[in-house]
Amino acid sequence: MKVNILAGATSKFGELWNISPRELVQEVVKETLQMANLTKARIEAVFVGNMLSSSLGNQDHLGAFYAEELGLKVPALKIEAACASGGMAVQAACQSIASGQYGNVLVVGVEKMTDHKPEQVYNALMGAGSDTEREAGATFPALYALIARAHMEKYGTTERQMAQVTVKNHYHASLNSHAQFTNTLTVEQVMNSPYVATPLKILDCSPITDGAAALLLSAKKTGKSVTIIASEAATDSLDLSNRSSLTSLNSAASAASLAYKKAGIGPQDINVAEVHDCFTIAEIIAMEDLGFFPKGRAAQEIAAGKTYLGKGKLTVNTSGGLKAAGHPVGATGVKQLVEIYQQLTGIAGKKQVAQARIGLTHNVGGSGATAVIHILKKS
Amino acid sequence: MKVNILAGATSKFGELWNISPRELVQEVVKETLQMANLTKARIEAVFVGNMLSSSLGNQDHLGAFYAEELGLKVPALKIEAACASGGMAVQAACQSIASGQYGNVLVVGVEKMTDHKPEQVYNALMGAGSDTEREAGATFPALYALIARAHMEKYGTTERQMAQVTVKNHYHASLNSHAQFTNTLTVEQVMNSPYVATPLKILDCSPITDGAAALLLSAKKTGKSVTIIASEAATDSLDLSNRSSLTSLNSAASAASLAYKKAGIGPQDINVAEVHDCFTIAEIIAMEDLGFFPKGRAAQEIAAGKTYLGKGKLTVNTSGGLKAAGHPVGATGVKQLVEIYQQLTGIAGKKQVAQARIGLTHNVGGSGATAVIHILKKS
Repeated sequence: MKVNILAGATSKFGELWNISPRELVQEVVKETLQMANLTKARIEAVFVGNMLSSSLGNQDHLGAFYAEELGLKVPALKIEAACASGGMAVQAACQSIASGQYGNVLVVGVEKMTDHKPEQVYNALMGAGSDTEREAGATFPALYALIARAHMEKYGTTERQMAQVTVKNHYHASLNSHAQFTNTLTVEQVMNSPYVATPLKILDCSPITDGAAALLLSAKKTGKSVTIIASEAATDSLDLSNRSSLTSLNSAASAASLAYKKAGIGPQDINVAEVHDCFTIAEIIAMEDLGFFPKGRAAQEIAAGKTYLGKGKLTVNTSGGLKAAGHPVGATGVKQLVEIYQQLTGIAGKKQVAQARIGLTHNVGGSGATAVIHILKKS
Repeated sequence: MKVNILAGATSKFGELWNISPRELVQEVVKETLQMANLTKARIEAVFVGNMLSSSLGNQDHLGAFYAEELGLKVPALKIEAACASGGMAVQAACQSIASGQYGNVLVVGVEKMTDHKPEQVYNALMGAGSDTEREAGATFPALYALIARAHMEKYGTTERQMAQVTVKNHYHASLNSHAQFTNTLTVEQVMNSPYVATPLKILDCSPITDGAAALLLSAKKTGKSVTIIASEAATDSLDLSNRSSLTSLNSAASAASLAYKKAGIGPQDINVAEVHDCFTIAEIIAMEDLGFFPKGRAAQEIAAGKTYLGKGKLTVNTSGGLKAAGHPVGATGVKQLVEIYQQLTGIAGKKQVAQARIGLTHNVGGSGATAVIHILKKS
């Protein structure tokens, strides 16, 4: 299955109280179509990645909703896979093209989260968790705190090392005008921020965010296209207590292994990656699950600066990641591919990785029950 | 795109207060796998059709939720397109197979609606409507009443003719042990039932229902398989006031036209159809949009008994349709294909259409903003 990205765009991510999700989607689609030099009439289907429109917005029928907003009467549907909704929407859209049914397909990821009371948002997000976790009053920071604690005990990972993930991603976000937070941070600032769920502090956590992202996928290549050479997903138990490990996400490791095989490459071939750093520990574990560093070594390597822009052969989360660019859940997986598209076509601006040829995205749902991996290469 | 149905099953539809949606899904998947003589290990992905799990059940991450319930770690996702969620899930699953990514895929449609207060259910269902319709206090019976009134004024359609749709579908449901209502009704009983939204009476409306349905789709044929020879969808405005016509659903007419073209057949070739009779007027309009009867003639033809089992060359809603078999929204589109699968493989029991060779399903979201059509043929 080889499908091409002809263009992609993200909105500004942040607390966008004066912009509706309709406007966000209009904006990113307009920019995407202009970039691809295509008219709306060429779009044959719309795949919408979204998690919370129903629980927070009482809006279902989301495919038709956005198709109408865009003035299209083509097939349209919503894909939900919690925080991996965007990545799974990209995968389903790829399949629709590879099946031969459509030539050009629009993928839209969108989430509006900041217009609601925090309790409403936390409750809605726990819709991605297990019944027992919810009955126990757990939230995602609490679940990832358990994961962090297990990783610390097993591998000696430290809070300072986790803080380094935040410092790196804020530095990258300072080069991304669309990021929610463009301020840089020091390790001391992160270490002095208050605990949310020990050992995770507020500055270990990705924020609540509004935002949208769009991609134009096509059966055809152009001079500025990027090819998706692998799209693989896997699932695992919703409930942490049913997992075989707390220090690795089997879903991500399994999807990555399939994706490398399909692409005919290995982790050493990846120049740039967007990984799902919903919490700093998640980026550390992602680095290990993706085979970028040996198990238990990622925290040290990240802290040593290996994955900074301009520092090594692999740069991670040039957008600023979920931590600093923001995490509008249904948009995140789409935005990750937009970032890699920009990197591989050399339009990433100040955050451009030199000579980026192959990129990877790693999008996770909930505490890891869903993982979807894409590998992209300049066409 | 040619994908095969190896097996399919539905649960009993109805007010299933003592059965959880997990149990419903377990039941239909077990029956489907037994029928196909396949083990769970052969399933490569799970596509879940569902509308209301989020707004009514606070359960997102529904793909991973059911994959875990089934003991599978394969890619899984939820597809939402309001009441067309089931049909769109089948379409996305077909694309995943036709793309070459998977060999065997499970499609599950599921909805649990009767465990909630009626106001909650009506509000959740209006998540499929437009903002202006919701602000006006409209419900789906009210919207379809407007459609019915327009059809009556333009074509002379009568309330007695609409009642005949109910009488036919209840008769068919009386032959279907899985139907929500297995009682037959007379035209007088329908005519004497109270109005919900004039001219629609309670017995013109499909019920609130719990239920699940499953299909096993495959790249391979077997001796008992049915081939999906067309899967086409289209969208239109959510809001009735933005449509070019009230007496036809452009989405359905457009998707049907594409599907006939793709299948290389015409409406005269269809022996058996499951159409989306959420209200009696919807079946009348479906008959016209699908080209089974000339515009404005369907009500008379249905009232004359042309689409009854054993009466003509086309039998419609042998399951009992949404009206009598029930309408668990996310399951409906999947159940329609299960019914046609049963008809084309000769296992439909008392409701069997003699010599059924080609069948069609017509699944609609909301008041018609989404329509998805499948055409099936004995492999």
